[in-house]
Amino acid sequence: MSQAVLKISCPDRKGIVAEVCQTLADCSANILDAQQHREDLDNQFFMYVKFDSSELNCERDILRTRLQSKAELIGFDWELNFSDEQKRLAIMVSKYDHCLYDLLLKNKYGEIDAELTLIMSNHDDLEPTAKHFGIPFYHIPRNKDNREEADQQAVDIFTEQKIDFIAMARYMQILTPILINTYPNKIINVHHGFLPAFKGAKPYHQAYAKGVKLIGATSHYANEELDMGPIIDQETVRVNHSYSAENMVQQGRDIENRVLARAVKAHAADRIIVYKGRTIIFD
Amino acid sequence: MSQAVLKISCPDRKGIVAEVCQTLADCSANILDAQQHREDLDNQFFMYVKFDSSELNCERDILRTRLQSKAELIGFDWELNFSDEQKRLAIMVSKYDHCLYDLLLKNKYGEIDAELTLIMSNHDDLEPTAKHFGIPFYHIPRNKDNREEADQQAVDIFTEQKIDFIAMARYMQILTPILINTYPNKIINVHHGFLPAFKGAKPYHQAYAKGVKLIGATSHYANEELDMGPIIDQETVRVNHSYSAENMVQQGRDIENRVLARAVKAHAADRIIVYKGRTIIFD
Amino acid sequence: MSQAVLKISCPDRKGIVAEVCQTLADCSANILDAQQHREDLDNQFFMYVKFDSSELNCERDILRTRLQSKAELIGFDWELNFSDEQKRLAIMVSKYDHCLYDLLLKNKYGEIDAELTLIMSNHDDLEPTAKHFGIPFYHIPRNKDNREEADQQAVDIFTEQKIDFIAMARYMQILTPILINTYPNKIINVHHGFLPAFKGAKPYHQAYAKGVKLIGATSHYANEELDMGPIIDQETVRVNHSYSAENMVQQGRDIENRVLARAVKAHAADRIIVYKGRTIIFD
Amino acid sequence: MSQAVLKISCPDRKGIVAEVCQTLADCSANILDAQQHREDLDNQFFMYVKFDSSELNCERDILRTRLQSKAELIGFDWELNFSDEQKRLAIMVSKYDHCLYDLLLKNKYGEIDAELTLIMSNHDDLEPTAKHFGIPFYHIPRNKDNREEADQQAVDIFTEQKIDFIAMARYMQILTPILINTYPNKIINVHHGFLPAFKGAKPYHQAYAKGVKLIGATSHYANEELDMGPIIDQETVRVNHSYSAENMVQQGRDIENRVLARAVKAHAADRIIVYKGRTIIFD
Repeated sequence: MSQAVLKISCPDRKGIVAEVCQTLADCSANILDAQQHREDLDNQFFMYVKFDSSELNCERDILRTRLQSKAELIGFDWELNFSDEQKRLAIMVSKYDHCLYDLLLKNKYGEIDAELTLIMSNHDDLEPTAKHFGIPFYHIPRNKDNREEADQQAVDIFTEQKIDFIAMARYMQILTPILINTYPNKIINVHHGFLPAFKGAKPYHQAYAKGVKLIGATSHYANEELDMGPIIDQETVRVNHSYSAENMVQQGRDIENRVLARAVKAHAADRIIVYKGRTIIFD
Repeated sequence: MSQAVLKISCPDRKGIVAEVCQTLADCSANILDAQQHREDLDNQFFMYVKFDSSELNCERDILRTRLQSKAELIGFDWELNFSDEQKRLAIMVSKYDHCLYDLLLKNKYGEIDAELTLIMSNHDDLEPTAKHFGIPFYHIPRNKDNREEADQQAVDIFTEQKIDFIAMARYMQILTPILINTYPNKIINVHHGFLPAFKGAKPYHQAYAKGVKLIGATSHYANEELDMGPIIDQETVRVNHSYSAENMVQQGRDIENRVLARAVKAHAADRIIVYKGRTIIFD
Repeated sequence: MSQAVLKISCPDRKGIVAEVCQTLADCSANILDAQQHREDLDNQFFMYVKFDSSELNCERDILRTRLQSKAELIGFDWELNFSDEQKRLAIMVSKYDHCLYDLLLKNKYGEIDAELTLIMSNHDDLEPTAKHFGIPFYHIPRNKDNREEADQQAVDIFTEQKIDFIAMARYMQILTPILINTYPNKIINVHHGFLPAFKGAKPYHQAYAKGVKLIGATSHYANEELDMGPIIDQETVRVNHSYSAENMVQQGRDIENRVLARAVKAHAADRIIVYKGRTIIFD
Repeated sequence: MSQAVLKISCPDRKGIVAEVCQTLADCSANILDAQQHREDLDNQFFMYVKFDSSELNCERDILRTRLQSKAELIGFDWELNFSDEQKRLAIMVSKYDHCLYDLLLKNKYGEIDAELTLIMSNHDDLEPTAKHFGIPFYHIPRNKDNREEADQQAVDIFTEQKIDFIAMARYMQILTPILINTYPNKIINVHHGFLPAFKGAKPYHQAYAKGVKLIGATSHYANEELDMGPIIDQETVRVNHSYSAENMVQQGRDIENRVLARAVKAHAADRIIVYKGRTIIFD
């Protein structure tokens, strides 16, 4: 069964759902799952529709044209993706490999609705892992002197490989605007702290010093402000006085895996809309 | 702002969402929140629509008539409730009062979209609590010889008081069919075990003997089969070897509160559809 | 059965446990539960021993004298409390009553190993609640001009009533050093944010603006630095884009209850040692 | 730093802790962490002591002899293990590989205090994975006709390889008494259900049919009764009406990983005592 997801965002007014669904019905699309949300403060409307596209009575382009007409009439932004045109995912990684393995396994089990196209690293340590899972591996060394060149090289490869979105699976480097701006709201980072607390380096050591009783991990879109992009998912895990900072690092790996994987799955499945620095996530 | 919730259930086919939303749009209803779900196994479709009903351009009865026409055409079951016609809630309780206090407080804070109409008990211990919160209290003694009479008396009062649904806040009695059948899928019970494990009496003691590492609580609709009605909410809490059965009872109170309160809130807000002994809960 | 808890803290060296336990054994105390912990970074040793004191073969003062001798020999700080000499607890509250009810109920169920002696408030709204539960209520109005006087008045009453520790059950006032310094590490506050993020006012609104996916609550000892005292307990709960700041406030109440109650229970049961701004909590 | 763990279990009486700790102090062992627990119902005492054994002033055998003398005097069972004599761990696996990868990674990160000696499977699919991580792999085909032979073959290899304990990382076979009885309370299984509910096959499908709102996973020691051995760890994860049984399987993988890993880590670190079909786990 081929499926598609339509996402819409616009100032709220009456009748949007009816008109959009009528457009879909006219093309013989059967709605499988849908959610609407209205942001009270701004009177902003968001809509997610997943539909069966296997019996469309028209070309996909016709459907797109009709949606565009509606969009101009009603004034909504829209995005339409078909499940048989999978997004292409690149993973960036350094040496810590737990998030990488987790994504590779979830990919293997078919949990991520995307094509895992390549792995890119600033080290070559994880090339055997990429090979073990049969994913192409690119090694782009990166140091403080060649950041721009390295990121440009990455952009070139991503462009050539038609990459749609990127997961930073503990990529221990700060991206330059070259990458950030090429993929706005398409680069997912995992931070090993419960943002906005413990930004920056060594969050577990900050957490230890503060004596917190929960540590957290956060997945978010990378933007030009370090660790401050739109939050996608967060999780915490209980710690106590007996945990050293090293024990916290250990505990943290599991929740880093989970918040990153959930973010990647949600993005792949077109379930995220970014609005005013926050994420609307349909599930 | 007056709001309304429309719930629909039927075998799936194309165009339902469009047609229903068009009916709402024709009456000038603005959709605030909506969710659709399709049960794959049975090809059954479920829809929840919350809309702003303050600017309807027609009488509510006209809207109902139009929905009924659609319902006959498409073949769906439907239910429509307006937020200014609040459901009337009765609480049944025995002597344990933690769930009662929790519901009374959440009601006071306006978290439950219902009118807490009365409290009924087989003991009079909690009359001062009812009084403290200004809720009418009915004492109906109940023993093994007068169950039917007691339940009939309860039904009479509930009928007179136009009760729409009932929360058994640790009501330590087994209801007779007299009550169960009068309020199908409208009586919410909380069981202090992680159903379907540990049915029946003393679930915490069963849990202790088994050496489980999590204990649970379950809210569900009461039906004729003890502790087997459709599950609404469940929660678990971690225990360990140092917990006696009494400690588990203590830990369990908090999660009993929560699963009952969430069930009551969901039912009050018309977010539940029961289908084949399971619950669809829109949130 | 009368029980006692002995807590010890000192630089680590060999033989401490043996010597302390021998002292207890010499007095015919039977150890029921014990935990030791060594802080690696500082080589600091902590010990918690709960023992059956009902068959002591000597006066409690003799035991205290012997422990003091050991303490001088080994160089440890110690604290010994008997369960039949319950700590006296005062609750400070303003108008929000959810934490107050939760503590009152847990006290009624015998979950807090302390004597709930009095409730003090800067408003009189909750006097009926205090009365309903049979707890003396003190009303001390407080405004920006009389903070010192009000806090001095509180200290006077607490002193007279032999109060050992204080729970601020959403007491919406900033304490002056008069109170803080009289009860160092004996005043427990609950903050409706996941500290150290979202300090200060309106943490839920801060959380909403940031778009976090978890909100938190924190119980901590109050010290002279606002919201920065030693953290005792924390909990988070999942939220999403559909939660307004007001919905977060509602969700937050439950976790505020829980982190405060757990802190009060741990303090009452002598399970907390404060060390370098962090808490060691034996459980 | 070499460390050791001493575990003791016996009917409770006064002075045990003092005597045991004195024995350790006499050998110049420094206690790092210790916990005692008394089972009220049975008056049974349990003790866990982790100590620094790097400055013992006597041979390990002398310490053992002294402990044995005390044991005979007091009547306790005891077990002493030194961290530099790591337990040897075997993993049994079939085709599902998520638990295997999780253990291999945690082993690589040094989280499991054991030597991962070998992987054994009834299929050869995961041989490349074993190879990728550099762990010897044994393939022992197994079908309904050769169960005893296969298990005997496994026991032979385990014996030869001096295996101390075994993790069944989704080994989809029912062990015969040949294996079970050779390694009592040393074989850790993970069951993809919240035991004791949903025993046996296809627990997620059972859970779906029942409409539960949480699914669970359980790690436990394997004994002769299927899925009924002493529970070591359990975890649940929230599901809702939108989850098919297949989605539950997917959600379940993460918690299977975690409950199995925690059990393996606890066993490796000598933190478990089995008593009357339940586990005492020191942490």
